[in-house]
Amino acid sequence: MDSNSLFNLQDYLNRRKGLVDGHLFGYVPPCEGPASTLFEAMRYTLEAGGKRLRPICVLAGADFVMGLEPPEIERGDWAGSRDPGLADALLRAACAVEMIHTYSLIHDDLPCMDDDDLRRGLATCHKVYGEAMALLAGDALLTHAFFTIGQIGDPFKERALDVVRELADGSGAEGMVAGQAVDLISERMGGGTESHLEFIHRRKTAALFRASLTVGGILAGGNAHDLETLRSVGETVGLIFQVTDDILDVEGTEEELGKTTGRDAELGKLTYPGLLGLETARRRSSELLSKAEDILQACGPRGIPLSVLAGKITQRRN
Amino acid sequence: MDSNSLFNLQDYLNRRKGLVDGHLFGYVPPCEGPASTLFEAMRYTLEAGGKRLRPICVLAGADFVMGLEPPEIERGDWAGSRDPGLADALLRAACAVEMIHTYSLIHDDLPCMDDDDLRRGLATCHKVYGEAMALLAGDALLTHAFFTIGQIGDPFKERALDVVRELADGSGAEGMVAGQAVDLISERMGGGTESHLEFIHRRKTAALFRASLTVGGILAGGNAHDLETLRSVGETVGLIFQVTDDILDVEGTEEELGKTTGRDAELGKLTYPGLLGLETARRRSSELLSKAEDILQACGPRGIPLSVLAGKITQRRN
Repeated sequence: MDSNSLFNLQDYLNRRKGLVDGHLFGYVPPCEGPASTLFEAMRYTLEAGGKRLRPICVLAGADFVMGLEPPEIERGDWAGSRDPGLADALLRAACAVEMIHTYSLIHDDLPCMDDDDLRRGLATCHKVYGEAMALLAGDALLTHAFFTIGQIGDPFKERALDVVRELADGSGAEGMVAGQAVDLISERMGGGTESHLEFIHRRKTAALFRASLTVGGILAGGNAHDLETLRSVGETVGLIFQVTDDILDVEGTEEELGKTTGRDAELGKLTYPGLLGLETARRRSSELLSKAEDILQACGPRGIPLSVLAGKITQRRN
Repeated sequence: MDSNSLFNLQDYLNRRKGLVDGHLFGYVPPCEGPASTLFEAMRYTLEAGGKRLRPICVLAGADFVMGLEPPEIERGDWAGSRDPGLADALLRAACAVEMIHTYSLIHDDLPCMDDDDLRRGLATCHKVYGEAMALLAGDALLTHAFFTIGQIGDPFKERALDVVRELADGSGAEGMVAGQAVDLISERMGGGTESHLEFIHRRKTAALFRASLTVGGILAGGNAHDLETLRSVGETVGLIFQVTDDILDVEGTEEELGKTTGRDAELGKLTYPGLLGLETARRRSSELLSKAEDILQACGPRGIPLSVLAGKITQRRN
């Protein structure tokens, strides 16, 4: 089966990115008064763009559980269109994930971390607002993510608490933050083993992708088997994303990526290309894609969108 | 009525602090493996002590809603003792509040913020673990607070989502972080008005006290009137705490406080004593205490513990 011919991924991504962008700034509105600069700093970094891949994964997790298939799905159908309460819950969770991702970028770019001046082609938050305000903007975005989920109403409140747990697990001391901590330790120790690298990738990047697909599935009422599939696919897609990121940092240009390239080597970061070479990194990416495709093929046509998305991520240029 | 003669506050505080300390480190256990340093940094700052006033407020909010009165209450009765599910929920929420408070201290002490070397008589987190690891330990504690609440089980899951919303509101961009941002802006602009000072105190400190009392009330099933009382008392107690803190920074010694004193003036922070003088600051503290006592007196004997606690905070020496 050639999934690509059955499914227009670009339409699917555009529509779902439109849904996310249409709500994100409503959850973080501009603010008058003494704290206006804080909100400006939060919105500046959210506005700085990105493909909204993680929030799209939240919506895709719900689509998967509700069995939406091509060709209907890229014509605009999505899980939330069947129930306004579910739509609200999904968009809140999706935007919360983007807030968490954005906070992690702000803190990651700070002078005491990677000390980056450029992100998505724009000056990083601390370059514009200063270090202290950037720190606070990150703290505020992380907290606001949970506030946004906390406003999910009946009859989705119990599922929303499961979303809080799943997202905090993926982004906290067992997930994303642990990955960043070990990334930092390896960098400052000047190296690490393949098992350290695996630890870092699984947590720093894959854990939030895993949580994103899973929380969409949770809100849509997925059963244990569906949620296990989403966890496994989400983690694999996240690993593909990170290996590709490492490869692009070596091969890409600043114009393509909108950020400083070659930083991984400069900082002495532990990466696949750095540790095992570019060719092994590319092979790893293909193996991961095959793994995701195998899991999704067993799910029938509802697995096609995620399968095509995973393929796209291995080929991305920015 | 002399509330003090009816109620042994110290016993009450000791018992509840014991409950909190007995659970806190179970929710943040030591961790083997590559991320062990991250957990060490989190636990180091949690262990560095503190009176656990905010988590005690969570438990006190529940006691208030359930109508617990002296003298039974200081003999060890507490709201959670009636139902193991409620006890679990209350202790999770209480410890989550302490994690949030602790993360805010870690980030506040960082070089780009107040640049403090000493906290509760010990070296601050970044002095021990470095700036980057302290940043991540703060991020991890904030996230872990929501993870800990996310694990609250039936039949308290819906109330737990309300707790997530209330706590995120009190500690985020409309609450604590906003207060810190405006504190910072005033400091760097070299001043501000009394209305700025009010804005800062309400958010930087009072919002988390307000949320703490309120979430205890929410979990115990408080009605709208009870929750409104707890919000109002919580905010007032928080304001008392901050005014007292400002006074102690002028009058206290490093031995008493376990932190560098005189820092507010050094940093040019906007404070009551700095803006309006020590005498006006002391009068403000008395007025706030009278306000809290009036609200609580109208609630009968169940209001005594909170009333005595508020009085104690105006007299604290550290």
